[in-house]
Amino acid sequence: MNEENIRRLLERLSLGDISVDDAVTTLRYLPYEDIGFACIDHHRNLRRGHSEVIFGEGKEADDIIAIMNRMAGKQENIMITRISPDKAEKVLKVFPDCIYHKRAGLMILEPCPARISGRGTILVICAGTSDIPVAEEAAITARFMGNEIETVYDVGVSGLHRLMAHRDKMIKASIIIVVAGMEGALPSVVGGLVDKPVIAVPTSVGYGASFKGISALLAMLNSCASGVTVVNIDNGFGAGCAASLMNRK
Amino acid sequence: MNEENIRRLLERLSLGDISVDDAVTTLRYLPYEDIGFACIDHHRNLRRGHSEVIFGEGKEADDIIAIMNRMAGKQENIMITRISPDKAEKVLKVFPDCIYHKRAGLMILEPCPARISGRGTILVICAGTSDIPVAEEAAITARFMGNEIETVYDVGVSGLHRLMAHRDKMIKASIIIVVAGMEGALPSVVGGLVDKPVIAVPTSVGYGASFKGISALLAMLNSCASGVTVVNIDNGFGAGCAASLMNRK
Amino acid sequence: MNEENIRRLLERLSLGDISVDDAVTTLRYLPYEDIGFACIDHHRNLRRGHSEVIFGEGKEADDIIAIMNRMAGKQENIMITRISPDKAEKVLKVFPDCIYHKRAGLMILEPCPARISGRGTILVICAGTSDIPVAEEAAITARFMGNEIETVYDVGVSGLHRLMAHRDKMIKASIIIVVAGMEGALPSVVGGLVDKPVIAVPTSVGYGASFKGISALLAMLNSCASGVTVVNIDNGFGAGCAASLMNRK
Amino acid sequence: MNEENIRRLLERLSLGDISVDDAVTTLRYLPYEDIGFACIDHHRNLRRGHSEVIFGEGKEADDIIAIMNRMAGKQENIMITRISPDKAEKVLKVFPDCIYHKRAGLMILEPCPARISGRGTILVICAGTSDIPVAEEAAITARFMGNEIETVYDVGVSGLHRLMAHRDKMIKASIIIVVAGMEGALPSVVGGLVDKPVIAVPTSVGYGASFKGISALLAMLNSCASGVTVVNIDNGFGAGCAASLMNRK
Amino acid sequence: MNEENIRRLLERLSLGDISVDDAVTTLRYLPYEDIGFACIDHHRNLRRGHSEVIFGEGKEADDIIAIMNRMAGKQENIMITRISPDKAEKVLKVFPDCIYHKRAGLMILEPCPARISGRGTILVICAGTSDIPVAEEAAITARFMGNEIETVYDVGVSGLHRLMAHRDKMIKASIIIVVAGMEGALPSVVGGLVDKPVIAVPTSVGYGASFKGISALLAMLNSCASGVTVVNIDNGFGAGCAASLMNRK
Amino acid sequence: MNEENIRRLLERLSLGDISVDDAVTTLRYLPYEDIGFACIDHHRNLRRGHSEVIFGEGKEADDIIAIMNRMAGKQENIMITRISPDKAEKVLKVFPDCIYHKRAGLMILEPCPARISGRGTILVICAGTSDIPVAEEAAITARFMGNEIETVYDVGVSGLHRLMAHRDKMIKASIIIVVAGMEGALPSVVGGLVDKPVIAVPTSVGYGASFKGISALLAMLNSCASGVTVVNIDNGFGAGCAASLMNRK
Amino acid sequence: MNEENIRRLLERLSLGDISVDDAVTTLRYLPYEDIGFACIDHHRNLRRGHSEVIFGEGKEADDIIAIMNRMAGKQENIMITRISPDKAEKVLKVFPDCIYHKRAGLMILEPCPARISGRGTILVICAGTSDIPVAEEAAITARFMGNEIETVYDVGVSGLHRLMAHRDKMIKASIIIVVAGMEGALPSVVGGLVDKPVIAVPTSVGYGASFKGISALLAMLNSCASGVTVVNIDNGFGAGCAASLMNRK
Amino acid sequence: MNEENIRRLLERLSLGDISVDDAVTTLRYLPYEDIGFACIDHHRNLRRGHSEVIFGEGKEADDIIAIMNRMAGKQENIMITRISPDKAEKVLKVFPDCIYHKRAGLMILEPCPARISGRGTILVICAGTSDIPVAEEAAITARFMGNEIETVYDVGVSGLHRLMAHRDKMIKASIIIVVAGMEGALPSVVGGLVDKPVIAVPTSVGYGASFKGISALLAMLNSCASGVTVVNIDNGFGAGCAASLMNRK
Repeated sequence: MNEENIRRLLERLSLGDISVDDAVTTLRYLPYEDIGFACIDHHRNLRRGHSEVIFGEGKEADDIIAIMNRMAGKQENIMITRISPDKAEKVLKVFPDCIYHKRAGLMILEPCPARISGRGTILVICAGTSDIPVAEEAAITARFMGNEIETVYDVGVSGLHRLMAHRDKMIKASIIIVVAGMEGALPSVVGGLVDKPVIAVPTSVGYGASFKGISALLAMLNSCASGVTVVNIDNGFGAGCAASLMNRK
Repeated sequence: MNEENIRRLLERLSLGDISVDDAVTTLRYLPYEDIGFACIDHHRNLRRGHSEVIFGEGKEADDIIAIMNRMAGKQENIMITRISPDKAEKVLKVFPDCIYHKRAGLMILEPCPARISGRGTILVICAGTSDIPVAEEAAITARFMGNEIETVYDVGVSGLHRLMAHRDKMIKASIIIVVAGMEGALPSVVGGLVDKPVIAVPTSVGYGASFKGISALLAMLNSCASGVTVVNIDNGFGAGCAASLMNRK
Repeated sequence: MNEENIRRLLERLSLGDISVDDAVTTLRYLPYEDIGFACIDHHRNLRRGHSEVIFGEGKEADDIIAIMNRMAGKQENIMITRISPDKAEKVLKVFPDCIYHKRAGLMILEPCPARISGRGTILVICAGTSDIPVAEEAAITARFMGNEIETVYDVGVSGLHRLMAHRDKMIKASIIIVVAGMEGALPSVVGGLVDKPVIAVPTSVGYGASFKGISALLAMLNSCASGVTVVNIDNGFGAGCAASLMNRK
Repeated sequence: MNEENIRRLLERLSLGDISVDDAVTTLRYLPYEDIGFACIDHHRNLRRGHSEVIFGEGKEADDIIAIMNRMAGKQENIMITRISPDKAEKVLKVFPDCIYHKRAGLMILEPCPARISGRGTILVICAGTSDIPVAEEAAITARFMGNEIETVYDVGVSGLHRLMAHRDKMIKASIIIVVAGMEGALPSVVGGLVDKPVIAVPTSVGYGASFKGISALLAMLNSCASGVTVVNIDNGFGAGCAASLMNRK
Repeated sequence: MNEENIRRLLERLSLGDISVDDAVTTLRYLPYEDIGFACIDHHRNLRRGHSEVIFGEGKEADDIIAIMNRMAGKQENIMITRISPDKAEKVLKVFPDCIYHKRAGLMILEPCPARISGRGTILVICAGTSDIPVAEEAAITARFMGNEIETVYDVGVSGLHRLMAHRDKMIKASIIIVVAGMEGALPSVVGGLVDKPVIAVPTSVGYGASFKGISALLAMLNSCASGVTVVNIDNGFGAGCAASLMNRK
Repeated sequence: MNEENIRRLLERLSLGDISVDDAVTTLRYLPYEDIGFACIDHHRNLRRGHSEVIFGEGKEADDIIAIMNRMAGKQENIMITRISPDKAEKVLKVFPDCIYHKRAGLMILEPCPARISGRGTILVICAGTSDIPVAEEAAITARFMGNEIETVYDVGVSGLHRLMAHRDKMIKASIIIVVAGMEGALPSVVGGLVDKPVIAVPTSVGYGASFKGISALLAMLNSCASGVTVVNIDNGFGAGCAASLMNRK
Repeated sequence: MNEENIRRLLERLSLGDISVDDAVTTLRYLPYEDIGFACIDHHRNLRRGHSEVIFGEGKEADDIIAIMNRMAGKQENIMITRISPDKAEKVLKVFPDCIYHKRAGLMILEPCPARISGRGTILVICAGTSDIPVAEEAAITARFMGNEIETVYDVGVSGLHRLMAHRDKMIKASIIIVVAGMEGALPSVVGGLVDKPVIAVPTSVGYGASFKGISALLAMLNSCASGVTVVNIDNGFGAGCAASLMNRK
Repeated sequence: MNEENIRRLLERLSLGDISVDDAVTTLRYLPYEDIGFACIDHHRNLRRGHSEVIFGEGKEADDIIAIMNRMAGKQENIMITRISPDKAEKVLKVFPDCIYHKRAGLMILEPCPARISGRGTILVICAGTSDIPVAEEAAITARFMGNEIETVYDVGVSGLHRLMAHRDKMIKASIIIVVAGMEGALPSVVGGLVDKPVIAVPTSVGYGASFKGISALLAMLNSCASGVTVVNIDNGFGAGCAASLMNRK
């Protein structure tokens, strides 16, 4: 390890194996590696259960397969985000053990599935059926990162009774991800009902003045319910990551 | 009136008092007056109870007083919108019978108050205490135009129980005006609870990404509850007028 | 019924059949069902004439058919919005009694057509021929919900005489829906001519600085004619629903 | 003048007073002066009637007085735009012959008023009383530049009969400037009634979603009446200049 | 004619053929027809040279052919705007005398071409080769409406010498249409060089922060050269119409 | 309390003190109170340490004092947000035990300060000195809600070494709030260095194209570091609340 | 050349071959040619190494080939920007010596490659792999214009250690081009680490609230690191040109 | 210095004065200090001539004086940006040797003025007189950082001859800063005339659709002249810094 390297260098110096000048030269480049060290450590945490994330968008199926081949020997869990059905098909031919979550556009290879390590359950709620793909992206991401998840779909604010029927799940959850398009009101309502961290995910669902999610995004940023934080439009993956971090013991 | 004038003209023609040429010349200009007639008729409807509206914004106190003087003899009811306290004070010195609604920025002179003529009650709901001025503008406008009004204030979506406590009023109302700033979610919630026309009024209340009401406006336009229509930001007067028209028998 | 349930519970308690603790536990979950009750009641109102609305956008033909199958036995009227010709064709194969309104993108199955129950006629006006699909969506929705409708198309403000020729229809209507793209001026002109509730529907018709309907939307929100309310861009369905609610006796 | 200078230079060369090298060096710098020549010529045209325009905004009263002093000896007509009452007062003390148009924020010194030289009358129409300052800026600018003007104020689209009453003036005019805020619909209506060049001037009048004139600007750019061109928000001066150029014989 | 009808009605009244009541009833509906009259007159002016314009965008080839068939007998000139090559081909099969201007997306049928009736030449300038389609739309429209046109293409501000080489044409023209995308600076430069009405046409040419023409549009609205007016993005047709109106004798 | 009330009601019913009808009538209104119950419970959680929050913005000093008087007897902790110095002064005259945090615009009355109950430390980092008021609002809010806080100010991305010097605090914290204006890059950098929940708070600090915080807001929403969530512009209070919820054991 | 022409004219004048009048007439048109001269000179500088740039976007393969044919005889280097693979293929058939850089969408024909003439190395850094096409466009453009280039890709701010590993290259470079999408934070970080001119290139990479590069653009314009300047979204070519100009000796 | 410290540590280790463990512990914190080192070095370069910059905006006069006191002993040159006249007055009382540039809002204390060290002259051009404050900020900043500067003011594109008259200065300069508001066309014109790096500075000068500089900003980003880069609206200081970096030998 890095600290190991420094220690070895210093031992060699204290033993007279290398000169002070040599040591200075070597150390000059250390800092950045050390920052790297911090990051690697961080990455290791992210990879709990030996997981790795590949952003599929903008990558060819061949690129993805190449990256997976490099990791495959290491028995690592791999998740590929935003991968289209046709690319998924190509990857599946090479890695038939992969599972493809079509609605979420996620593909997962889990030789040793992440053990559940979070503090509690992450609840994913969405307003309409069109919001489900984003909600699924969030839910599967959170589960992949070692969290217990629960989902409640199609409970928009125009029919509050549907939401209320799931009161228990909201009270039981440790973190709630709320996914909504159109007027984006659901996170405010949920945030007013429970005292849990609420991660609001605006979706590009809607038409006209929904402006591909801007309307929902603004509504969520202006939520009158304190305790609501927001991620980018359609960013289910980001919400899943953030929830996973919040759910650490 | 106008039709009278035409009739008199034609009678004079049929009596030979004027020539066909003279009549043609006079009639040439009639059409537009006739449209005017349609509009005057319309205005008369608007003025049920002999009411008149003066837009106070951008007018000096002296201008307002001058306009009021011209009407004063006619025993008409007069409402002045968006009039600031200092202008109101000047007007009150000349017309001490006026009543100034400070929060709503409205001034009213009602020698013969409008009799209640609407189909039912217009309910005005607002989300936060800062939305009250706009809500009051709507409520007083609607009452001035001859409607029974009821108000429920400070019942934002982050505490649904406050709204639910007024369930009966919502069910009883014929039209509901819902005033909200910030994330503008209240009209969607109200629209989902009752099957009444809901007029949503976004307010410029909020900060940061509320963008002086744009956020609330967009949310309302994208409401998932069908039956919700929207007016301009802070336009309580417009909501009151629209509700009054909808409430006609 | 719900109230029935409560009464029965209380009777059992007063009879000593159940303990106070049991009753408390049961009552704990009641509220939300009760809200549900309110909503169901509301839904029943919406479904006057046993009608049901399916949002077609984003649903596969198979999904739509599945939903329709579940309802079909109940002799309910069904309307499917925003359904494309190819999906419509698939649905028609299964439900040959459906009528597909191509321009409006609406499909309707009406075993027992809604009886006309509104207060008066809903008039749908549009500015240009390109606005007709949205106007049709509004008109057919309103009719489906039990209203008499009348339509006046292609009467934009650049040729006022075309609009004026339909003066009688405007005066006769109880609610007017005005559909326009580009500069969106028509609702202001109509709102100035008659004292009826005007529902303005901006369309995405236009190019360049029309910004897919934003220009028309803003113009309508800023209408100098009071009594005009606005729905989302291209939202003919919403306008039809709102008009139907306003037209209730 | 410039051409004079060139001629004199060439004469001196042809007389042998200067060498070819000297002439080349001098001519090297001519081009840009010559462009200047073109521009000066252009300016002379602009200054028909010996007029000069000073943009008052952002200039101190002393700056304005200094510029005026430099011109004063030349018997030129001077117009100062966007000059506030307090600055105007200071200027009036030094140039008591100036006339200050308070509503338009314009000040004019006309030792020899421009003679009317345009092809016809420029008609300035505005929608509401709040639009009058911009309309006046346009009208006075056009008159200052030697055009006959006529004005029709407060004839917004919500009361078409008021506009129609001035049909004759519209038909008689050679150019029409239409000033409107809020929904900016008036130019479309005027453009539909007459076949004259219409210059649309959006104003920042309105509130909420008028966005300080953006709403009116967009409506005007999207006018369904062909023949309408647009200037910047509140730019009465620009409209007056453009109309004056269009009105040239 | 309309005035004829009124006269005849009045004569019948003065002769006692009809009663005053009958005359009042008839006159009640006249106004709007009379406005229509004004408009028809206006249309006749627009159609100088018996021309008619069909907006091709959003119309099927069959619709266009149907409209043309109705006019064809009348020996009218017809222009179809924004017609795509495939639709044009279909129309050409039915009306082989049509001429299709592919770059401009315009089709013209001219049994009796408009005689040149404008005051002077309309000059169309564009900044880059990508702006030519819009420039052509403007130029052909203006010629179709009876104006002499001249064109100067590909003279953007980053190479002023190219523009300067056409100085004479600018000085000779009566109206100048300037078409530009990207930073939209050309109208300001042209407006500074000549004292002619300049109609600026922003195009959607550019990428990134050109925002499909918004950047050019804003630049043109803010032109420091007075006398510049602006039309909608890519609106060559509108510029051609406006220039034609300005060019009337 | 509420559940108490229900129990007592039921006991009275089971004892025959009241009839079933009476009980039904009473229970009819319960549901909403029961939701209120949920909310009150939630509020109680929020108020850990008996705290209460008053939004000071838009309230007069007298309003604030009135609200405080009502609570004062209950020995509750009170925090007033967005209270200006002059209002604060007035409140301090009545409640001299209040502490006014001028930079944060917060006033606090803590008869029994909240005991530290969170899982770990909440670290508040800000980019520039101008961001400190918002950072302080976040920090003081979080502390008021019973969390240990640490602050690191003025460590913007243009001098990464300043941030790096506080590596230990970042690693030690359980939640990190990152406050930044201008380009809003700091949360991305922090989010890349540690695997903690990062709450990004954009501020309105900056000029020109910072657009009062929009620039920073967008940057934060688009953060390439997963695990970052965002609150409204300048919303230090919201960030403090959210962090407090995330920090619950 | 131009100056030659003038000299010859003057010599003819001084010899009496032509009259002063003739000379004046000729000189009248010179200026613009002379500006042209200045520009040609400028162009020659741009073309150091006999290079020419053709903007491929919006040009057909045949157009490009035609332009290349005209130049081909002159042994000039030619670069074609934004040329798609299918067009490139067609060009390659005619000019098989061309090299096509697919990722950058650039094609180059270099009979005599530009000799390196800049002051130092231009370093091109990009944040993510999706930004590489724009980065390549910048790098290849700069090299084509005679500069030494170095590239460092995929070093986004969420993993600073990757950037730090290239510290030496940053210190060694004379100009740094930094390409980034999403939150656009990289130029601020780079600008804070070195005292070199930094040209920031926002890319349209990202989704949701990245708004096709606006988010990155705003972040870069608001960079807290002084010394950063910005070009248009995805404008790698512009960045390469600007860097080349800055790198002149 | 830092490297010194490391060396000394290592020497002590190699001498056995400290243990390897101690050295490791110490080195652990070094990296970040070392990055700091890089930055300090960078800062030293920025401070050529011992200069320091204080951002005056948002700082009280007392804060500024305090900072200046800390530096004053070190004979450093100090520049304070965006300092208002009243604050400047207070600072001048304590530091009477300061020079206050009122138009630019800059204050400078130069015990030992920076010696001119740049490669060439930095030319600052501005379009209108209202742009001068921003231009002065750029010019004085560049001079303060050791560059020769030249200024050309009030040469907007609507009168190109004024710009052309300064051709020589443009050709002579090594870097050109072009400052413009309104339509922001000047940088494109200048960039087309010379082959120098052009830094474009949009200003908030203008009204209506200039949107406080957005219009000019967009125009500059879309400049058709390659080689133009852009800084934030009104950011004269940033332009001066960037120009200074580009002007390094």
